[in-house]
Amino acid sequence: MKTRTRLIAWPAALVAAGAFLGGPAAFAADQVDLLKADQMAGQWVMPAGNYANWRYTTLNQINAGNVAKLQPVWTFSTGVLRGHEGGPLIIGDTMYVHAPFPNTVFALDLNENGRILWKYEPKQDPNVIPVMCCDTVNRGVAYGDGKIILHQADTTLVALDAKTGKVVWSVKDGDPKLGETGTSAPLVIKDKVYVGVSGGEFGMQGRLTAYNLSDGKLVWKAYSIGPDDHLLVDPEKTTAMGKPIGKDSSLQTWEGDQWKNGGGATWGWISYDPELNLLYYGSGNPGTWNPVQRPGDNKWSMTVFARDPDTGMAKWVYQMTPHDEWDYDGINEMVLADTNVNGKAVKALVHFDRNGFAYVLDRTNGMLLQANKYDPAVNWATHVDLQSGRPQVVPQYSTQHNGADHNSKNICPAALGSKDEQPVAYSPQTHLFYVPTNHVCMDYEPFKVTYTAGQPFVGATLSMFPPQGEKNLGNFIAYDVNDGKIVWSDPEPFSVWSGALATAGDVVFYGTLEGYLKAVDMKTGKLLYKFKTPSGIIGNVTPFEHNGKEYIAVLSGVGGWAGIGMAAGLTEDTAGLGAVGAYKALNNYTQLGGVLTVFGLGE
Amino acid sequence: MKTRTRLIAWPAALVAAGAFLGGPAAFAADQVDLLKADQMAGQWVMPAGNYANWRYTTLNQINAGNVAKLQPVWTFSTGVLRGHEGGPLIIGDTMYVHAPFPNTVFALDLNENGRILWKYEPKQDPNVIPVMCCDTVNRGVAYGDGKIILHQADTTLVALDAKTGKVVWSVKDGDPKLGETGTSAPLVIKDKVYVGVSGGEFGMQGRLTAYNLSDGKLVWKAYSIGPDDHLLVDPEKTTAMGKPIGKDSSLQTWEGDQWKNGGGATWGWISYDPELNLLYYGSGNPGTWNPVQRPGDNKWSMTVFARDPDTGMAKWVYQMTPHDEWDYDGINEMVLADTNVNGKAVKALVHFDRNGFAYVLDRTNGMLLQANKYDPAVNWATHVDLQSGRPQVVPQYSTQHNGADHNSKNICPAALGSKDEQPVAYSPQTHLFYVPTNHVCMDYEPFKVTYTAGQPFVGATLSMFPPQGEKNLGNFIAYDVNDGKIVWSDPEPFSVWSGALATAGDVVFYGTLEGYLKAVDMKTGKLLYKFKTPSGIIGNVTPFEHNGKEYIAVLSGVGGWAGIGMAAGLTEDTAGLGAVGAYKALNNYTQLGGVLTVFGLGE
Repeated sequence: MKTRTRLIAWPAALVAAGAFLGGPAAFAADQVDLLKADQMAGQWVMPAGNYANWRYTTLNQINAGNVAKLQPVWTFSTGVLRGHEGGPLIIGDTMYVHAPFPNTVFALDLNENGRILWKYEPKQDPNVIPVMCCDTVNRGVAYGDGKIILHQADTTLVALDAKTGKVVWSVKDGDPKLGETGTSAPLVIKDKVYVGVSGGEFGMQGRLTAYNLSDGKLVWKAYSIGPDDHLLVDPEKTTAMGKPIGKDSSLQTWEGDQWKNGGGATWGWISYDPELNLLYYGSGNPGTWNPVQRPGDNKWSMTVFARDPDTGMAKWVYQMTPHDEWDYDGINEMVLADTNVNGKAVKALVHFDRNGFAYVLDRTNGMLLQANKYDPAVNWATHVDLQSGRPQVVPQYSTQHNGADHNSKNICPAALGSKDEQPVAYSPQTHLFYVPTNHVCMDYEPFKVTYTAGQPFVGATLSMFPPQGEKNLGNFIAYDVNDGKIVWSDPEPFSVWSGALATAGDVVFYGTLEGYLKAVDMKTGKLLYKFKTPSGIIGNVTPFEHNGKEYIAVLSGVGGWAGIGMAAGLTEDTAGLGAVGAYKALNNYTQLGGVLTVFGLGE
Repeated sequence: MKTRTRLIAWPAALVAAGAFLGGPAAFAADQVDLLKADQMAGQWVMPAGNYANWRYTTLNQINAGNVAKLQPVWTFSTGVLRGHEGGPLIIGDTMYVHAPFPNTVFALDLNENGRILWKYEPKQDPNVIPVMCCDTVNRGVAYGDGKIILHQADTTLVALDAKTGKVVWSVKDGDPKLGETGTSAPLVIKDKVYVGVSGGEFGMQGRLTAYNLSDGKLVWKAYSIGPDDHLLVDPEKTTAMGKPIGKDSSLQTWEGDQWKNGGGATWGWISYDPELNLLYYGSGNPGTWNPVQRPGDNKWSMTVFARDPDTGMAKWVYQMTPHDEWDYDGINEMVLADTNVNGKAVKALVHFDRNGFAYVLDRTNGMLLQANKYDPAVNWATHVDLQSGRPQVVPQYSTQHNGADHNSKNICPAALGSKDEQPVAYSPQTHLFYVPTNHVCMDYEPFKVTYTAGQPFVGATLSMFPPQGEKNLGNFIAYDVNDGKIVWSDPEPFSVWSGALATAGDVVFYGTLEGYLKAVDMKTGKLLYKFKTPSGIIGNVTPFEHNGKEYIAVLSGVGGWAGIGMAAGLTEDTAGLGAVGAYKALNNYTQLGGVLTVFGLGE
């Protein structure tokens, strides 16, 4: 990493390590101001730690000098097997832990090694399970105004009293009979709660929905695809690459009624910039996965949305992968960082897309500043044209070009992308992004498919494998958006499907599919500590402070798309949308699990 | 504890801490001589560590001076929830871990934090689950002659190649359609493997069976109840309390054909004295639980058997609870210790029975030397008459006396005994027994029941609760058989359902139902260390050495009879044969799990 002057703007207090404004004791559950999340170093009040999606802590008790002495201090089984994505929230002395289906939520007492204060277990129809494309995962709960908000598999959004676990309100956000399911973490902003929906493999209609935090009443619903009044756009004021999107911007890019089963799911992490009053999220693949069957750019699938959280109106949009031919969902999280890009200080939005490009946009207006590959294996496009914003597709790897019933070989990345939901961490100290990546390629053969409500609407057969001549399926990398380059890269035998955590202690944490929690030096990537947790880690590393001591928590429990073979008991190589074959060797390292491990420095 | 001269006889090498004859590297899997188990301190080659059922290690790297620094070093999820009884074996560099139904067995590489060398998952009919009275537990595998022997839930006894996991032979030991299931750990002695059977609540016919270790061929089968040729007894030579048992000793104590559904299951731990060439085990309750319905002493239910392992012939028997009225199974393990009893050196067999008495017998001839209460709450009998060997029952607590359809109140202990399967540890240094106990009483109402093959044959409704005016449901105690007294007693909120481990490091380990692994001072019971494992512990603490370092392993995963409410999702207080109500508060501490945690001293 090079040393140079950096723009340090937002929020300034964070950069001086430890300069936070209060201890955890100061924050009772009903006093938490989410806008001040960055100043509550001891707690973790929203899934990513702050609205900017940093996954960074100013805590530095655990640091590069002592992290080798880290050890588990207590553990907690959720009582559920299969993939455990997401991570806990920590509000005051209480930790809130969620589980995959049936989506049990626990309030654990940090004063008693995680004694259970309350438990909420929704009653859900298990028929939702076959409609969940990529394991029965859930990415965590949100907190706001004394309530814990859970997005259940069956799309029910439920608000629980954070002190008692009692249901305050409950609304049905979607319909599993149409292939709609809930897997994503909601986000609370001011007096509303926002939630996306899963189901891109079932031809559903993706949208972000806002509900009143107080009573669960619907406020607005903004679709990814469809007529303008569904999209919540202003043809004149909503822009793409700095220009108005115009009338019927989505409908014009679909043939006939195909948009009605067009997908554009919204199951990623949501960000928010309080100063601009804009929230950011991405939309997923268009339906079907057979590109030949759905001509057009299929807007606004594969798109970053910047919306006014109060009205839902889109300020700008940017489509990463027009007319997707590979299932390169655009749902990956948007990280908001005020940093240098190409040598110039900007209010950046940084997005490591499934398609293998790291996009940097001006988040005030959606202008594309940079889009470089963050895995050298990426081959489906030579580059992204910064003027048009479009990728330059290599015909050899174009499944549209090669046509249906042709098996296009060795496309990199695979459908699960150079990165999937596993979130990056950003350090305002190093200004680097710490990215858990997949190093996986695929063969992709589209075939004709007919839409049937609630049935898979995929239309492609896939195999996945490491890049030719290689063995490793993943890397954990540090990425610099100033010059758009990888700074260091730690190879991993399997995809890194866990969310990273950057710390003021010069250490970055992540988990591996074999089950290791790893701590590496922030500047060099050097391994400083590892511990084998009970099962493969696809959860996100979460820091907190309790009674003046820093701790690190992470859920283990192998699964998710990468671990779907183990989670669902599939063995055919092409099962799990192609993932089963690639990750078979995982069986030699780990078994299904569901355990939270809390690490500390001991006495 | 008092200081005095002790008989230290067997095996002498053990007593000098650390004076073992070789390191783990010296023992390849095909070289292990089970008779020398005591001299292989680094390994754990049979369920109790040695044939004498001591659960004692001469390892002393982890000791009272440093145990506070213990920490988990790696963990492993079995991928199975529900109760995890038993513990792993350690042979050379390999750890063999088993799981509850479906009884998966794993060979884990100790050189790589438990990487999976092989995995064996039997295909079993899940209809066996409802026939398992008290959770889908399994108490572990046996090792012998390069084979790992597993007793499956469906009673299949299977021998696996210890190096590859491939099936060498497989035999069906019983029939789940008759209520027969496999839960117990087999034991290998010389060229045979011995296995008991579960099903006392289903009116099956209990027996111990010997198979050839080489090919699984049946060698002998010795029933607990029935005609002499079923019992494998010699009416003249087999003795009870020093006298020949005579002809038809069992049949004479049953009315008509009732013996045919008489139970006497054999699912406890087996011991062996190589010098006497006798194996020891206990039989369980007679069927039904309604005593009014089955007059007589119901021999040889509730009995200690001493048998010749080559022929199966019984040398002596001793019935603890003639005509059981409380389900005080006699299956608890027999610990073989050469120690002082009543001031005199004897070859003792020490047995902490479900009925609350600690029996000490001369294991050469079955003479009763001592039988004292090891829980002050025990009230069903005033004492055991040492001449007749019979308990003196208190009429108030006699469910026979009170009659069917009468609810006899406040009987102590409850049906699950002052101790159940959770094995004790014995230290040849302190000559004390470390006993995980239940401190639980019951109301017991017998009712008439008709035998139907494969259906519960219980005939009693139970409630369980702590002794009147008390809160704690368990104690972990040190017990001295010289004077037949409790030396110290550590109260626990719940039953201690984990097996103990005594060490040459002056530390005793046990696990709790909330999930704590605890280390206490051997001489005082003082708590020196605790760690909250992922789930409640009903597994047995197991030591081993690897690359010159001592480790402690334990399975967590709440369940078993005490945890049956959580394991099977039961909520009625009288469900789980009365256990559900007593242990309801466990829900506030732990959830289902299935994780092996390995502890060490760190760097």
